[in-house]
Parts: sequence; C-alpha cells; structure tokens
Amino acid sequence: MTEFQKIYTHTYHLTAAQCNAQRELAPAMLVQHIIEVATEHADALGVGFKNLAANGTLWVLSRIAFEVKRYPRLFEDYSLSTWVEAYNRHFSERNFEIRGAGGEVIGYARTIWVSIDMRTRRPANLDGFDFLRQVVSDKECPIEKQGKIHTIDPPQMCHPYTFQVSDIDVNRHVNSSRYVELIFNQMDLETYDRYYVSRFEIEYRREAHFADDVEVCSSFTPDRSALITSINLCDKPVCLARSETSPRPQPETNTTR
Amino acid sequence: MTEFQKIYTHTYHLTAAQCNAQRELAPAMLVQHIIEVATEHADALGVGFKNLAANGTLWVLSRIAFEVKRYPRLFEDYSLSTWVEAYNRHFSERNFEIRGAGGEVIGYARTIWVSIDMRTRRPANLDGFDFLRQVVSDKECPIEKQGKIHTIDPPQMCHPYTFQVSDIDVNRHVNSSRYVELIFNQMDLETYDRYYVSRFEIEYRREAHFADDVEVCSSFTPDRSALITSINLCDKPVCLARSETSPRPQPETNTTR
Repeated sequence: MTEFQKIYTHTYHLTAAQCNAQRELAPAMLVQHIIEVATEHADALGVGFKNLAANGTLWVLSRIAFEVKRYPRLFEDYSLSTWVEAYNRHFSERNFEIRGAGGEVIGYARTIWVSIDMRTRRPANLDGFDFLRQVVSDKECPIEKQGKIHTIDPPQMCHPYTFQVSDIDVNRHVNSSRYVELIFNQMDLETYDRYYVSRFEIEYRREAHFADDVEVCSSFTPDRSALITSINLCDKPVCLARSETSPRPQPETNTTR
Repeated sequence: MTEFQKIYTHTYHLTAAQCNAQRELAPAMLVQHIIEVATEHADALGVGFKNLAANGTLWVLSRIAFEVKRYPRLFEDYSLSTWVEAYNRHFSERNFEIRGAGGEVIGYARTIWVSIDMRTRRPANLDGFDFLRQVVSDKECPIEKQGKIHTIDPPQMCHPYTFQVSDIDVNRHVNSSRYVELIFNQMDLETYDRYYVSRFEIEYRREAHFADDVEVCSSFTPDRSALITSINLCDKPVCLARSETSPRPQPETNTTR
C-alpha cells in the first residue's frame, strides 16, 4: 500500500514584484497560495484536478477562514503546510499552517471543499476515493471554525463592478482570489497602513462569470468588530465575507506614545 | 574579480490557480515574471532593489516589448532567461528568452530600465556601478526593438477605472502588471479564445497612485494590424501600449475547415 504524505509543505519567497503597498503578502495572494497548495497536495494524493476530471468531478472551494498574527513580509521565506482534518464522500476539511522566516508560526487557515459533478454542478459522490480516509491527520489547527455569515441591511457602502478578462480563471469562472481583492478594495489604502485583517472568512455561494455586473456591499457589525461584505449578482450573494481587523504594532522607533 | 553570471534563468511551473481562462500564463503574469527575473538577476549582480536603495536610487521599468509564438500552458514547466544587452550610466537594456517544456523557445522580450533618484524622481547617475559593463552579453534577441507608440484620436473605446488597494505595489504606485491587465481587459473573453496577443509593447510614462481616476482608451490602427491603448490620467498618458494579435491554431480534431 502507498505511504501517504499526510502533511504537505510548499515554501515561498516574497519578492518585491509580488508585494502589496504594505510590503507584505496580500491577503488575496494568501488565498491563491491556499488553493495552490491544496491542489498540489491533492495531486500528490491522487485526488487532484486531473484525477477528478477523469471522473467527471471537480473540487469546489466552499469556505475559507484564516487568522494571522502578521502577513509574510518583503524578502521573507515563508511556507504553507496543509493536511486533511476530516473527509467524507461529499466534502473535505483541509487546514493550513503558515510559517514565516526561521519557522515562526504566523497563522492558520481552515478550508472546506465540496466535490461536484462537472456537468450537473450538483454534489458528486467520492466513494471511489475512500482511501483518502487514511490521510486524515490529527494535527491541531488552533483557530475557530468558520461561522455562518449574516449580511447587514442596508449596506453602509456599495460599489459596482463588472468582471473582466483578467478576473476569469481556468474553469471560466471568476477567480476565487479576485473576490478577495474586491472585498479588501472596500477600504482605502490608509486603513491598511494602520490596521491589518487578522481574521478573514469567506463563503463562496455561486459562480460568477465574465461580464457579470455585481455590487460589492459592506457594513460594519453593530459593535464595529468586523466588516461584513456581500458580492451580489442580481441581488443574490455570490460570496459572503467577514473581516476582523487589528491595529498594526507601532514602529519601535516611535517612543512618543 | 567576481565572476558574473551573464545569463540568469528562473524556472516556473504553471499551476491551475495561476492560469487564465485560456489555460495559459496570462500576459500580465508574464510581465510580472519579467520584472521578477530582472530583479533577481540585478540582485545577484549586486545592483538590485536593496543595493540601489542604499544609494537612494531606484530602477524604473520604462519599456517592454515581447513576442511569443504561444504562451506557457497549464501544468507546463517553463523558464525565463535574462541578460543585459546594453548598459550606460542612465539606463540598461535587458532581454529575455522564454522557453516551454523540453526547452522549446516560445518567445523573447526586450526591456528598458532607467535609474532614478528616489526623492527627486529625476534620472540618477549609476557611475558607481560601472562594473556592470562586464555583464553585457552578446546573446541574440531576434525580435524588433520597441518603437514609438502613437495614439489614435479619437479613441474607438474608452473605459473609466479608479485604482484600488489591490492595484498598488511595493513602491506605492500602480503595479506595472496591473496596467497590462487593464489594457487586455479592453477586449472580451471570446476574442482571446480566438486570438492571442503575439506581440505586445508597453511604454510606462508616469506613475499613477491609489484612487487615481483613469480612462483606458483604445483604437485599432487603420490597417487593423494592432490595437493602440492609452491609459490617461487628467488627459495625459500614464502608459501607452500596442498589441498585435494572431489567430489561434484550429484544434487538430476540427477537420471541417
């Protein structure tokens, strides 16, 4: 029997060309990495894009939650390690540990993947991949599971957007990480200079396509502890997100406060 | 004396998460790679971001021209090799060879980089880096040099855009590859299913910033051989581009035409 690699790690280096204005890994790039590393591990386990496509099936990302104490920084070597926490024939729960330079743990992520039939877009049955039970790891993921996201009406800010060529992915849908960019674009640059998103949750509900006109609508929760965002297509959410921010540490040279 | 590596190569693998709708490397990602590989080679030569910053100087990308017979494809291993073709104390000409799986040459790129003073934003003097002359390579780059791009008035199509958080780079300007996305977004998805941009030129004129409102304006040349695009801020171009398209080869199974 094959020996399965229960924990899979991908190491990255943050180049200047990949940085955001805060000289960090942008949250949308973290989401892209999460998808990439999940795909690589699934490929290594024989349940990746190609294997499932041969079966007429597709993994669809349903939910992500991540929590970071900071983001990887310019020129930093960082890594994402992933493992399967739970698995049944309809979906899998896959977690991630994010480490910075020297192996410092800087965050965790939780994801939920659903298998669907490529043609009907209905949940598929993964009975044939039952060997996956053997890869389940009991490694700890010390962040809370994703909660249900409730939109707040009426929204405090709404921006229209029409999906363009550059937003479309390999499956002809809007790229999962592009939604994250649109959600983060609800706030201005100065806000991210002073605060960082320390916990982020997104729930993907439906697929949007090229030329779809959406409204990106956000509201703060009554206690202002989180920003709730909904990307709406014909008044129905394509995805829902919840962002919690934390103040950035003051520079060490600033001793006046 | 140090032995300089005249030709520097970076190898990539195109994952599903990084693909565009045509299951290829998107042109904007090719531009990001060009910047990344140039930066890595400059770093290796001791004239990178960090070295120049210590000198109060910055490399600014002025022009790119690339020509491809095809783009790297989903799951393909591909590489960019770079070398310096010419160098003086104000700018450098750096070329690229793009290879696909098995080492097949699939394209070339030419770039021009100008060194500027970080504070005054005026051309800087790189006399102190004169050892760079030793890295000039006579490797051939068999594509035409960048030409002057003339806008066509009035434009045949114009789209407004306001720069967002996700468009801003490490230097607090709009990301060079983001302009390329906006330029490619002037056409629709179906056009890129039937045609690919076989030659692309871009000239970066000025820096745009967060919240700047621009107009992306395009016109075909009278002979329809190229699309000329200008991204305008207050009626002055931030960048100018010229895109030449070629029809994609028909699928081999299609024998009816």
